[in-house]
Amino acid sequence: MKRIGVLTSGGDAPGMNAAVRAVVRKAIYEGLEVVGIFHGYQGLIDGKMEVLDLGSVGDIIQRGGTKLFSARCPEFRTEEGQQKAIEQLKAHGIDGLVVIGGDGSYRGSMKLTESGFPCVGIPGTIDNDIPGTDYTLGFDTALNTVIESIDKIRDTATSHERTFIVEVMGRDAGDLALWAGLAGGAETIIIPEVEINMDEIVERLKSGSERGKKHSIIIVAEGVMSGAEFASKLKDLADIETRVSVLGHIQRGGSPTGRDRVLASLFGAKAVEVLIAGNGGRAIGIQNHQVVDYDMNEAFDNHEEFDMSMYQLSKELSI
Amino acid sequence: MKRIGVLTSGGDAPGMNAAVRAVVRKAIYEGLEVVGIFHGYQGLIDGKMEVLDLGSVGDIIQRGGTKLFSARCPEFRTEEGQQKAIEQLKAHGIDGLVVIGGDGSYRGSMKLTESGFPCVGIPGTIDNDIPGTDYTLGFDTALNTVIESIDKIRDTATSHERTFIVEVMGRDAGDLALWAGLAGGAETIIIPEVEINMDEIVERLKSGSERGKKHSIIIVAEGVMSGAEFASKLKDLADIETRVSVLGHIQRGGSPTGRDRVLASLFGAKAVEVLIAGNGGRAIGIQNHQVVDYDMNEAFDNHEEFDMSMYQLSKELSI
Amino acid sequence: MKRIGVLTSGGDAPGMNAAVRAVVRKAIYEGLEVVGIFHGYQGLIDGKMEVLDLGSVGDIIQRGGTKLFSARCPEFRTEEGQQKAIEQLKAHGIDGLVVIGGDGSYRGSMKLTESGFPCVGIPGTIDNDIPGTDYTLGFDTALNTVIESIDKIRDTATSHERTFIVEVMGRDAGDLALWAGLAGGAETIIIPEVEINMDEIVERLKSGSERGKKHSIIIVAEGVMSGAEFASKLKDLADIETRVSVLGHIQRGGSPTGRDRVLASLFGAKAVEVLIAGNGGRAIGIQNHQVVDYDMNEAFDNHEEFDMSMYQLSKELSI
Amino acid sequence: MKRIGVLTSGGDAPGMNAAVRAVVRKAIYEGLEVVGIFHGYQGLIDGKMEVLDLGSVGDIIQRGGTKLFSARCPEFRTEEGQQKAIEQLKAHGIDGLVVIGGDGSYRGSMKLTESGFPCVGIPGTIDNDIPGTDYTLGFDTALNTVIESIDKIRDTATSHERTFIVEVMGRDAGDLALWAGLAGGAETIIIPEVEINMDEIVERLKSGSERGKKHSIIIVAEGVMSGAEFASKLKDLADIETRVSVLGHIQRGGSPTGRDRVLASLFGAKAVEVLIAGNGGRAIGIQNHQVVDYDMNEAFDNHEEFDMSMYQLSKELSI
Repeated sequence: MKRIGVLTSGGDAPGMNAAVRAVVRKAIYEGLEVVGIFHGYQGLIDGKMEVLDLGSVGDIIQRGGTKLFSARCPEFRTEEGQQKAIEQLKAHGIDGLVVIGGDGSYRGSMKLTESGFPCVGIPGTIDNDIPGTDYTLGFDTALNTVIESIDKIRDTATSHERTFIVEVMGRDAGDLALWAGLAGGAETIIIPEVEINMDEIVERLKSGSERGKKHSIIIVAEGVMSGAEFASKLKDLADIETRVSVLGHIQRGGSPTGRDRVLASLFGAKAVEVLIAGNGGRAIGIQNHQVVDYDMNEAFDNHEEFDMSMYQLSKELSI
Repeated sequence: MKRIGVLTSGGDAPGMNAAVRAVVRKAIYEGLEVVGIFHGYQGLIDGKMEVLDLGSVGDIIQRGGTKLFSARCPEFRTEEGQQKAIEQLKAHGIDGLVVIGGDGSYRGSMKLTESGFPCVGIPGTIDNDIPGTDYTLGFDTALNTVIESIDKIRDTATSHERTFIVEVMGRDAGDLALWAGLAGGAETIIIPEVEINMDEIVERLKSGSERGKKHSIIIVAEGVMSGAEFASKLKDLADIETRVSVLGHIQRGGSPTGRDRVLASLFGAKAVEVLIAGNGGRAIGIQNHQVVDYDMNEAFDNHEEFDMSMYQLSKELSI
Repeated sequence: MKRIGVLTSGGDAPGMNAAVRAVVRKAIYEGLEVVGIFHGYQGLIDGKMEVLDLGSVGDIIQRGGTKLFSARCPEFRTEEGQQKAIEQLKAHGIDGLVVIGGDGSYRGSMKLTESGFPCVGIPGTIDNDIPGTDYTLGFDTALNTVIESIDKIRDTATSHERTFIVEVMGRDAGDLALWAGLAGGAETIIIPEVEINMDEIVERLKSGSERGKKHSIIIVAEGVMSGAEFASKLKDLADIETRVSVLGHIQRGGSPTGRDRVLASLFGAKAVEVLIAGNGGRAIGIQNHQVVDYDMNEAFDNHEEFDMSMYQLSKELSI
Repeated sequence: MKRIGVLTSGGDAPGMNAAVRAVVRKAIYEGLEVVGIFHGYQGLIDGKMEVLDLGSVGDIIQRGGTKLFSARCPEFRTEEGQQKAIEQLKAHGIDGLVVIGGDGSYRGSMKLTESGFPCVGIPGTIDNDIPGTDYTLGFDTALNTVIESIDKIRDTATSHERTFIVEVMGRDAGDLALWAGLAGGAETIIIPEVEINMDEIVERLKSGSERGKKHSIIIVAEGVMSGAEFASKLKDLADIETRVSVLGHIQRGGSPTGRDRVLASLFGAKAVEVLIAGNGGRAIGIQNHQVVDYDMNEAFDNHEEFDMSMYQLSKELSI
């Protein structure tokens, strides 16, 4: 292994730049050269790449987004596209590739690994939905962005004694909604992992209101339904008036938190070590407080059990 | 003047608590008693009030929302409601009233003043839409909330080379959108004070795209149309794909900025001075860097001219 | 167990309020009564306490500091003081006590437990220096406060091409300095766990300078020496000019991060469960991603081994 | 005027990058070329400059510090240094110069103007100490940095019932300390413009303490004395124990606030207009809510009267 590539792919997440920096610096420390590939798999196919040195990753650890850009790439899903990618990698003398992204990005990198080109994946997505790692890069930053928003919305909810519905990202996963709801002191949290019970929700709101609770925050994970849809359900079922706030893309941006930067540094360095050890098809993660690498195929497992205890706690604390 | 009341009314705005604190402390400093009236005009009619001392406004200068709560009050628009309010004020030995809110709140206080009960208004609204004052309380905080959001959205817009539409509050006024757009480096700003020219906007986006500009931020003031509506116009007219972010109620909350806290302190103190001087029907404001009081009727003037120079500058700087 | 007490003690840390809230709500959920004890052990001796209901912990999850106050209490170190405390607890019908604080607070609670009164400890300190738990409450918030400060100092360091020394809290532990240094991209990190090598540090600075690196951030943990002392060492040894920034008490305050709020919620609930199960002398913590309780005496163990890998990584990434 | 230069000089301030951006974009809009001069006057003498285009100021409006760097330059104080600078400007075909900085930077630019080379100054300093403008760039951002710090320190001051002394920047001016003290709800504010009365301060602290006020924040402007010196005075005079927090260089950094970015945009554009109009020796500022240019010599006037009303208000509100 003399020369490795690094790219970011899929939805951007805070900490991607910090991970790129760690890959570059660790690789240089280990005597390797690093090539940055721009615009994800599309840029790989198109050969948009350049050598990154220490200076090229200076002053980026704190930046949101990704300096390597990201893009969708339907072409890469074809075998032809994958062959082009491998040709580009070989033409540029690249021996291994670090891919930073979500599960779509992982699937792409598995294709390359299966074709004989070793890839390692770093989990970069705010959704925290990659099996095999307790946390993904960007989740902690997004969590803080969401709770800062909830804190602001609570100001207005309290002042006007209103019920607010806050729609939170997370695709099919409820982690962001659950953590943010618990940390934000939300009265109700609706996530894909728990079947929605409208009667119970209405009951809670009404009994709270009878006990004198005049304002309320409800968190809805986008994977269940939209905030607007939930609002109209409450209106239809029980004539409850609410305001809806859709946090949207602000959840994807911002300077990464300390934890996301540390995680990015650990993940980036580990990815380089795994490549040097000659391993492809591995995913990097943190399991039980340890940075690990594991078979990337485990990251595609959809049957991970959801830990109900935190959800249960959120209900107990919002009585 | 021995005893004054203070209430907050209309949409809440950061700095309202700081203004209440200033009213209370300045009044006590001047030897007056202060009564806090809860839930705006509704609470006034219902007699929901209590004496505020120095301690009751401790640790609130930095809090968003309003500790006095706010509420809509259709009853107060009737003459009967206004009479009830005056009776409550008299029953509680209150000689003058400070009302913190927007133009609806001002109209209410003019009714009381016209009925012989002296009121003074402090402009509290993020919309910056009250004639006679260069700034309203909350505008500066909302501005910073919006640009922090734009900074985050730009991370994602840049990484994915997309065009984002950001819908910003402001009711019929474009100040928040214009300031935030200028401060956020937005490529296009759409405000009610300037007629929209879709052809020009499309032209700008296309020529920018041709020159290599791959991402773009468009700010739309809610007073013009919704972000979603604007997005579908762009799609229909020119097949331009965009993402929409509606900032919503986060713009109303949050800890007030330094400037909003200072302004709140100056406004609160001035309001007390004006009441002590025996004047009702006055609005407090800042004009040309001076804290002033002026005839509240001027605050209802809709014909204030809009300063086009900042809008023009925003276009020049976003070439 | 029918009635439990809760107090905060030692240096305050962000998340203490969230932990108090969780203790109160979980206990009420479980059918217990909760008494808040003000001003730490001193207040316990003096009987400064009152029953806390759901409303009394409303709107505090996001507040820094501690609503229960904290204080030093030399009297409590005496057997007589401890007896007074137990008498107060009995007089108020309290059956168990949750103590939120650092190791000094833990020692106090062990005295009570040994005297037959069951106490459970929640680790609340920004220093992250309590054996048996991977994280203490407040550490994550302090980390983010420090890196925000470093990000600001870097602006000025870069603009003026200067070397800055940033002194960071942590008592005898280097965790805060190490995490913040890694997350802040510091060039040099000086912590108590690693012997200082001035020659190497000077060498690094000089070779960096020769390679064109014009600015540099050095993090010094207060447990090693003060920033000023380190600056004069650099000046004396190698005539290197630096600026010093002592972050000081801002590291102790601020609204807790999402993670600290979640941790506080988990810890508070667990503490109540442990008390209900009849166990005293237990400390709550998080170990390998699991919330646990363990013998509090383990928290006094000073021989925990320091994980050198993160320190080593910080050097590799700052080449 | 076909080609203008721009440089930043003196202590860096948030908003400098936004001002550079505005100068560049406005100048290009007006058909001029712009040359960025790096490292202040030293870089001017050394010819460190390059043409700036629209792209070179992309994504900098939100960045703290200055991308053009700053540096001290003793050589520029000599006539010989100034002649070298003018030769460099002529050699690079530059017809006018925008200097962003404080009064030292202004003095340098007056030398050039007096030698026949037209310069315009933009006030960039957090100290707000330039006569002729109500605000300088960076003041608003520094104000918010200071009050965020005070808010954090208050958490700890309240929890432990302590008196804190917070030392704030501002050189010989008390604006930052006064605004931050008023906005932060400080109990005592010590600024160079008002003679210090230790007896009164001690009296206030003691009477506050007798009335039950257990914590207190004292702001000391660095222009009066250091926080440590003030602490030892309180200790010596009245045996009052305090903690000291020196905010230091974090006050100089950070992403500029909305207002600083808007001001920077207005100032930058105005500076270009003034140069195009053929005027040198002018300073840009904001006076009574209007962007103006004025004779730069007025900026050196030290006899501006201090507005005592805000100071007086701070005392009235902290009773």
